[in-house]
Amino acid sequence: MNDACGSFKGSGENMSDLIKPDLPGGFKDYSPRQVLARQRMMRNIESVYRRFGFVPLQTSIAQRRQVLTGGKPSENRLWDMRVDKAAISTDPALTVTARFDLTVPLARYVAENVGTIVFPFRRYEYGDVFRGESPQAGRFCEFMQFDADIVGAQTGPADAEIVLCMANVMLALGITRFLIKVNDRKVLNGLAERVGFEPNSASAKALLRTLDKQDKIGLDGVLAELTASQPPEGEEETFAFDQPRLVKVTEFVTLCDGANSIEERLDRLERYFGETGIGAEGVAELRLIAKLVAAGGLPKEFWTVDPSIARGLGYYTGPVFETTLLDKPEFGSVYSGGRFDDLVARFTGESLPAVGASVGVDRLFAALEALSMTGTVEPDVDVFIISMDASFMPDYFAMACELREAGVSVEINMNYQDSSTRAQMGFGLSRRAPVMLFYGSGDAALGMVAVKNTVTRGQESVPRAQLVPKVLTILGRSA
Amino acid sequence: MNDACGSFKGSGENMSDLIKPDLPGGFKDYSPRQVLARQRMMRNIESVYRRFGFVPLQTSIAQRRQVLTGGKPSENRLWDMRVDKAAISTDPALTVTARFDLTVPLARYVAENVGTIVFPFRRYEYGDVFRGESPQAGRFCEFMQFDADIVGAQTGPADAEIVLCMANVMLALGITRFLIKVNDRKVLNGLAERVGFEPNSASAKALLRTLDKQDKIGLDGVLAELTASQPPEGEEETFAFDQPRLVKVTEFVTLCDGANSIEERLDRLERYFGETGIGAEGVAELRLIAKLVAAGGLPKEFWTVDPSIARGLGYYTGPVFETTLLDKPEFGSVYSGGRFDDLVARFTGESLPAVGASVGVDRLFAALEALSMTGTVEPDVDVFIISMDASFMPDYFAMACELREAGVSVEINMNYQDSSTRAQMGFGLSRRAPVMLFYGSGDAALGMVAVKNTVTRGQESVPRAQLVPKVLTILGRSA
Repeated sequence: MNDACGSFKGSGENMSDLIKPDLPGGFKDYSPRQVLARQRMMRNIESVYRRFGFVPLQTSIAQRRQVLTGGKPSENRLWDMRVDKAAISTDPALTVTARFDLTVPLARYVAENVGTIVFPFRRYEYGDVFRGESPQAGRFCEFMQFDADIVGAQTGPADAEIVLCMANVMLALGITRFLIKVNDRKVLNGLAERVGFEPNSASAKALLRTLDKQDKIGLDGVLAELTASQPPEGEEETFAFDQPRLVKVTEFVTLCDGANSIEERLDRLERYFGETGIGAEGVAELRLIAKLVAAGGLPKEFWTVDPSIARGLGYYTGPVFETTLLDKPEFGSVYSGGRFDDLVARFTGESLPAVGASVGVDRLFAALEALSMTGTVEPDVDVFIISMDASFMPDYFAMACELREAGVSVEINMNYQDSSTRAQMGFGLSRRAPVMLFYGSGDAALGMVAVKNTVTRGQESVPRAQLVPKVLTILGRSA
Repeated sequence: MNDACGSFKGSGENMSDLIKPDLPGGFKDYSPRQVLARQRMMRNIESVYRRFGFVPLQTSIAQRRQVLTGGKPSENRLWDMRVDKAAISTDPALTVTARFDLTVPLARYVAENVGTIVFPFRRYEYGDVFRGESPQAGRFCEFMQFDADIVGAQTGPADAEIVLCMANVMLALGITRFLIKVNDRKVLNGLAERVGFEPNSASAKALLRTLDKQDKIGLDGVLAELTASQPPEGEEETFAFDQPRLVKVTEFVTLCDGANSIEERLDRLERYFGETGIGAEGVAELRLIAKLVAAGGLPKEFWTVDPSIARGLGYYTGPVFETTLLDKPEFGSVYSGGRFDDLVARFTGESLPAVGASVGVDRLFAALEALSMTGTVEPDVDVFIISMDASFMPDYFAMACELREAGVSVEINMNYQDSSTRAQMGFGLSRRAPVMLFYGSGDAALGMVAVKNTVTRGQESVPRAQLVPKVLTILGRSA
């Protein structure tokens, strides 16, 4: 009884000792096939960034919380980090927090190294960022961004370079059905000005926040929300959305209806804002960008001016960009950015002009998968050596050595103890190896190796000394 | 008075509003020049891993704490993570913790996907890992590892492949003065057996823990520490280090003195252990590895058998490896690994043989820097366009477009507002651009562009239409 109980309990303990091999909710791994396809996408992006003169930076994932938030409440839920459940500091200067994007760590790096960096500083960076997203909503807490930014260049040419770079990235990925939408925060601030709100007032922000929802709730929704909205504290007297104000908002929102060309859109915006004020400034910035983007050779089908684009109420101060996949608009913007002239000032007290854009790597890759555009699956390995006879293992090692020295990738099968040659071949095919080698006692006696081309299914016996050139020929490489 | 006070306070607030742009202690950024050099190193490593048939995996940085620790106290201090200072769970199954290496996340991935992976699974992975290291000691809390492992292959060929792969990585990095030291945990367990301790007993572990310090404290230190050591709880009766035991330890530690060849070392180990027992098993494993490493073409100068290597008391169960740089031994092992047949069993209850090795990327890179072996600094960009006249910006954009389409990397200078041509040239030189372009009103009138070769310092005027071929010629590329 005692024994039975004991052994039952023992086996129960064993079971409960086993640790469940799952990830925390909201996190995921990438399988080799996914990594290889993502890697190909990333290296395409990287080569465009290099052609535009960007150099790579790598910032720390861990940052001080107040660096990330600017000492203000964060728009995003953030992951704090501490060693072995240490007491959590309530001081955001002492709290270690995982970066939620790559832009704030860039601004921090620039502020810390402002004396040694030669501006304009063109840097790219890819890496994981962390947000406290809800796994239930299918969003992930760790995801990759791939940014390019120019720090230390005024608006105009630098912004046009970013738009050109974005378009070249999309084209390098084989995507031709995309649209980059460009706006300027000054255009939106111009609307607030025309409506009669102070720039950056709570009223202006409330207006922009509602406008930002336009693609979800439509014009009617925007007007209804504005009519029903409560005045922000301290701005009760100036806030009310009366009929004249709603007319101005409606006029703005419908301004580009039916205007397909960028020129026509800019003309209408110019007429709406007149020649002075913040809105006119924004239109002038967009005109310069349009001129340079055209000079940079980008066909007009790939981009437009869209005055409804706001990109949230974050750190953007001038032009803003987003990118829609025309065949997968439901993925939202896969590549977004804008100008953030005031972000470095958080640390230095002085503005430093900056503009850039960020690929949402996971979102873009998911969209490419949905479009069946992630490319063909390459072989894991060029040559798969069947382990016909364990006593010939030293020969397999010698063959692998020679082939690898010739730049060929080789796997010697090491799951041979209980495997038939046939089972080993199935294993090699699962690696998609274009070449398989067979070498047993019969071959050894003749000094030959059997070389199988798994694509043509042809097989021939070649002298041992001819192995490397034969394999290179099958692979279509020169010796 | 009120005003003065107010403005004083205001300016004081401004100063204190500024956020200090530093990183938390123990974390760091990598500058573009460092990233470019590290990237070159990483891609060299990657190409060797690919030649050995490894495919890339990317695991989540965030893991469940109990997955990482196996439910036991951790050897390392770990970084726990939680969203916005949320309450910390005391349940290690619910605590999110950053990975401290890439091996445990591999074992977790394999356990979760054991039904779909085709074994042996050869995977490589690079990525940041996190430990609660002391910044005072010059150690970093976030650092990169670059691992290759074979999961699902018994000891022997797979271990030899790992040793060959390690050596090929070192050679691919241009390092020829290195030594890979190989041992087997069974050899060390064999010593414990000869001394009379149960395998895996607390006494055996205490002995190995002391032996592991041999390179720091020497043989005398080892013997002194053993003599003074207290018996582990429950093993008081069997523990004492009497003279016969100390003789056996001394004999083991000095076993390979004066034995330079691998064969001589294996022979002496064989004589020490005889033909049976765990130690003899370990020697037989090392013999097979030695035979296959030789067959794989590795010259004997690059590796040896060293019975003093233990690689800590972690998850290793068989052969263990470490790599010393002969000209920088003070960096310790830059590339280490071993066999861990029981790690997956933490999750599945069943052993799954596995072996691999991990490059300490930051340590190896620091050593390469100390050896002046990180390679030449490449240009940030091929072509630097001097912005002689802002009104020609569209022309600069058109030139950049043509050059980039030809695969040339181009930076248009955007810091031109207050910069002389001379200052712009200095800026272009700081980018190490081999080509600079000059195009002002004089050039435009003639339809020519001035092309400067910054290496030869020659400059010539070429027709606008000849720009791309001219630049390609200077860069030594074909059109």
